Amino acid sequence: MNWKINEVRKDFPILDQQVNGERLAYLDNAATMQQSRPVTDAVLHYYQTTHSNVHRGVYTLSNQATDMYEQAREKVAHFINTESSEQIVFTRSTTESLNLVAQGFGDAVVNPGDEIVISVAEHHSNLIPWQQLASRRSAHLKYIELNEDGSFDMDSATRVITKKTKIVAVAHVGNVIGIQNPINKLEQLAHKVNAYLVVDGAQAVSHMAVDVQELNADFYAFSGHKLGAPTGIGVLFGKSNLLAKMNPVQFGGEMISKVTRDVATWKKTPLKFEAGTPNISGAIGLGVAIDYVQKMGLKSIQDYEEKLMQRMLTGIEGISGVTIYGPHNTKKRLGVLSFNIDGVHPHDVATGLDLLGIEVRAGHHCAQPLMQDLGVAATARASIAFYNNMADVDQLIDGVKQVKEFFLHES
Amino acid sequence: MNWKINEVRKDFPILDQQVNGERLAYLDNAATMQQSRPVTDAVLHYYQTTHSNVHRGVYTLSNQATDMYEQAREKVAHFINTESSEQIVFTRSTTESLNLVAQGFGDAVVNPGDEIVISVAEHHSNLIPWQQLASRRSAHLKYIELNEDGSFDMDSATRVITKKTKIVAVAHVGNVIGIQNPINKLEQLAHKVNAYLVVDGAQAVSHMAVDVQELNADFYAFSGHKLGAPTGIGVLFGKSNLLAKMNPVQFGGEMISKVTRDVATWKKTPLKFEAGTPNISGAIGLGVAIDYVQKMGLKSIQDYEEKLMQRMLTGIEGISGVTIYGPHNTKKRLGVLSFNIDGVHPHDVATGLDLLGIEVRAGHHCAQPLMQDLGVAATARASIAFYNNMADVDQLIDGVKQVKEFFLHES
Repeated sequence: MNWKINEVRKDFPILDQQVNGERLAYLDNAATMQQSRPVTDAVLHYYQTTHSNVHRGVYTLSNQATDMYEQAREKVAHFINTESSEQIVFTRSTTESLNLVAQGFGDAVVNPGDEIVISVAEHHSNLIPWQQLASRRSAHLKYIELNEDGSFDMDSATRVITKKTKIVAVAHVGNVIGIQNPINKLEQLAHKVNAYLVVDGAQAVSHMAVDVQELNADFYAFSGHKLGAPTGIGVLFGKSNLLAKMNPVQFGGEMISKVTRDVATWKKTPLKFEAGTPNISGAIGLGVAIDYVQKMGLKSIQDYEEKLMQRMLTGIEGISGVTIYGPHNTKKRLGVLSFNIDGVHPHDVATGLDLLGIEVRAGHHCAQPLMQDLGVAATARASIAFYNNMADVDQLIDGVKQVKEFFLHES
Repeated sequence: MNWKINEVRKDFPILDQQVNGERLAYLDNAATMQQSRPVTDAVLHYYQTTHSNVHRGVYTLSNQATDMYEQAREKVAHFINTESSEQIVFTRSTTESLNLVAQGFGDAVVNPGDEIVISVAEHHSNLIPWQQLASRRSAHLKYIELNEDGSFDMDSATRVITKKTKIVAVAHVGNVIGIQNPINKLEQLAHKVNAYLVVDGAQAVSHMAVDVQELNADFYAFSGHKLGAPTGIGVLFGKSNLLAKMNPVQFGGEMISKVTRDVATWKKTPLKFEAGTPNISGAIGLGVAIDYVQKMGLKSIQDYEEKLMQRMLTGIEGISGVTIYGPHNTKKRLGVLSFNIDGVHPHDVATGLDLLGIEVRAGHHCAQPLMQDLGVAATARASIAFYNNMADVDQLIDGVKQVKEFFLHES
C-alpha cells in the first residue's frame, strides 16, 4: 500500500467537520462520493486559465480545452481498458448512459416478442429504461431471481436467458446488497444466445479494477460523481461495431456532419452522441479523479475497503435485533451494507445516526422490486469509500447501538 | 450603472493573461462565457462543505444540498419570471432542453400531416430535433424566410403559420447575426392558430432581461454556461399544464413514484424529468451566476454592451473589403457580429486573430441552412459579454486590419 489513510483524508477537506456537533462520519458514498482537492484544483485551474468551448474554435484556448476534454476521454478509456477512446461516450450519468443504450440501441435491435433480461436487484435506472423499451417494442421483460443471500440464482438466469433474449442488463455490483455479480457467467449465457450484455458499473468503479475487455461486456455504464468527479458527468462504453449501429437520441450542435433544410447526417462515434456543449469541466474533473484512484491503486483500495467492511459487518452483526441484507462474506460484498433495526423505521435510524454525525441513507434505494422481494419497505444503508477510516466504522457501530437503545427504550 | 468594468474584470481572472504573447481579447462569448470568482467560489465551497446527493437522504448534508439545489431552481424561476419554480426543469444544456420538448411533448401533440415552423436562421439544436420529430410523426417542417438584413420576413411567417401548425420554434436572439427576433408577433401568430411557441433563449439570457410571462412562451430553453455558470447545466421552462402533459424521456432514480416488475409511475414535474443524480454543483453555480448578472442589472448590461457593439460595428464597417452579416443597427443586434474579409477564409481570419491574442470563432456556427441562405460556407464571429471592454473591441478592429493586410498582401 503506497498511501496512508490520514494523508488521503487531508485531500478531502469536507470530511474534517462536525455535523450536529459531532464528528462527521460520511457513509453515503454509494449515493455520491466526495471530491479530492486535486479534482477541485483542476476544475478551478481550467476555469481560471483555459475555459472555452470544445471542438469548435480554431483558436488557442479552444484547442487547449479540446485537448483537455479529449485527454479525459483517453483516461477513461485506459481506466476501464477499452480498445480505443472512441468507444467512450460522455453522458450526464449512469442513468443517461443506460437510457441511451435502451433507446439508441435497444429500439434498433429489439423486436416484438423478443425478451430483455434483468435481475430483481437492479437499480431503477437499469430497470425502467428496459421496462419502457419492452413496452415500446412489444417485447417482454424477464427477471433473474435471487438466492436467500441476495446473490443471483444462476438456475433462474439459465432458465430466463433463451434464444428469445436480445439484451441482458445487470449491475456489476448491487447498490443495496453490494454483491459483485457473476458477470463472466452471465456473459457466457448471453453471448451463447447472441444477446447483448449491458453492465451497470455505477457501484463498481470506485471499489475494484474494471476491465471491459476481460468482462467482454457490450456496453458498460458508470457515473463520475460516484468516483470523486464533479456531478453531471457520466460514461458509456460500447463496442465499436455496436456504437456504429446505435442511433443518437439527442440532436444539435457538434454531432452533425451536414444539415440541409430537410435532412441531416451525423459525425462518427463518440461525437454523434454528444449533441450540444458537453460538461467540459466535469470531464476534466473525472480525468483527475481517475488519476487519483489509479495512483492509489484499485487493488490496494479494494484490500483496504475489505478491512473496513469486515469490521463493519462484524460490528453490526454483533448487535442483537439488527437484520443485515446480503452476504456476511466480505469477499462477495463491495462498498455497501444495508440493514434494519427490528422495530425501528429505517428513516428513524438514519435520523438518529445523523444526530450522532453519521450520514447514511434510508429508503428503497431506487430498488423497489428488490425491497418487495426482501419483504421490507426500506432499509438503512451505510456505504464506504477509500477515504473512510476505522473511526468512521466504529462511530457507525456505536451509533447503531445508541439509536436502537433510544428508540426501543422510548417506545 | 452601479458597476465599474475594471472591477468586474477582476472577478474573471482568466481574462488577465496573454495568449500567443499578446493581451487576451476573449470574444467567443456566444460559444461559452467565462466564470466569475463568486461562481467558482460557491462551487468550491459546496464541494468542501456540503456535497451529497439530493432528494434522497434524511441526513443533514443531504438536506442542505437539496436546499441549495432547490434554491438555485428558485433563482432561475425568478430570473425569467415564471409563475412557479415547478416550471423549471434542470437539463444539461439548451440542446437537451429543446430535444426534451421535441420528444416528450412534440411526439405527444404532433400528428401526421401537422406542421412545425422554425426559421432559416435557427441553430442546429433548434432545427434537427424538429426535423427528426417531423420525420417520426410524418409531419412537415416549414421555414420562416429571412429579409436581406437577416431579420425574419414576417410576411413569410404569416404565410407558413397556419391552422396545420402545431409548434413554432424560434431563437429569441440569433447566434450568427444577433438579431432579437419579434417573439411577440410570432406569439400572436402561433397562439391564434393554437400552436405552441418554443423559444431558444441561449443567446438572449446574458444580454437582456427575459420575462417568459410577458413573452407568453409555452417553453423557453437556455444554457447555464452561456451565462457564466459551469458547463453541463441547462434549463427548460414550460407552462404548468404543458409540462404535466409532457412525457419524460429518461427513466431512473428519483423521477419515479412507484415501480413494480411490470410498470412504473412518475413523480410530478419537474422531478419526473430529472432522472438520476442531476448536476448539483452546476445548478448551484448557475444560481450564483444569475445573482451576479442580476446584481449588475440586465438593463445596465444591455446598455453597456450596446456601446461595445456600436464601436465594434463602426470599426469593422470602416474597413474596406469586409462584409458584415445582419443589421448595422445596434438597437436590433445583441452580442454577436459575424463578418468575412473578402478573399480570406474565415478560418484563416480566426487563426490570424488568435496570433494577436483575439479569440473569435470561425465556421458555420451550427447553422448550415443559414450559411446556405447567406451564400457563404462560413463566417468569422466575434461575440461580447459584459466583462469585455473597449480595449477588447479596439484590439479586434486593429486585428482585422492586420489580418487583412497580411493575407491580401501575401497572396
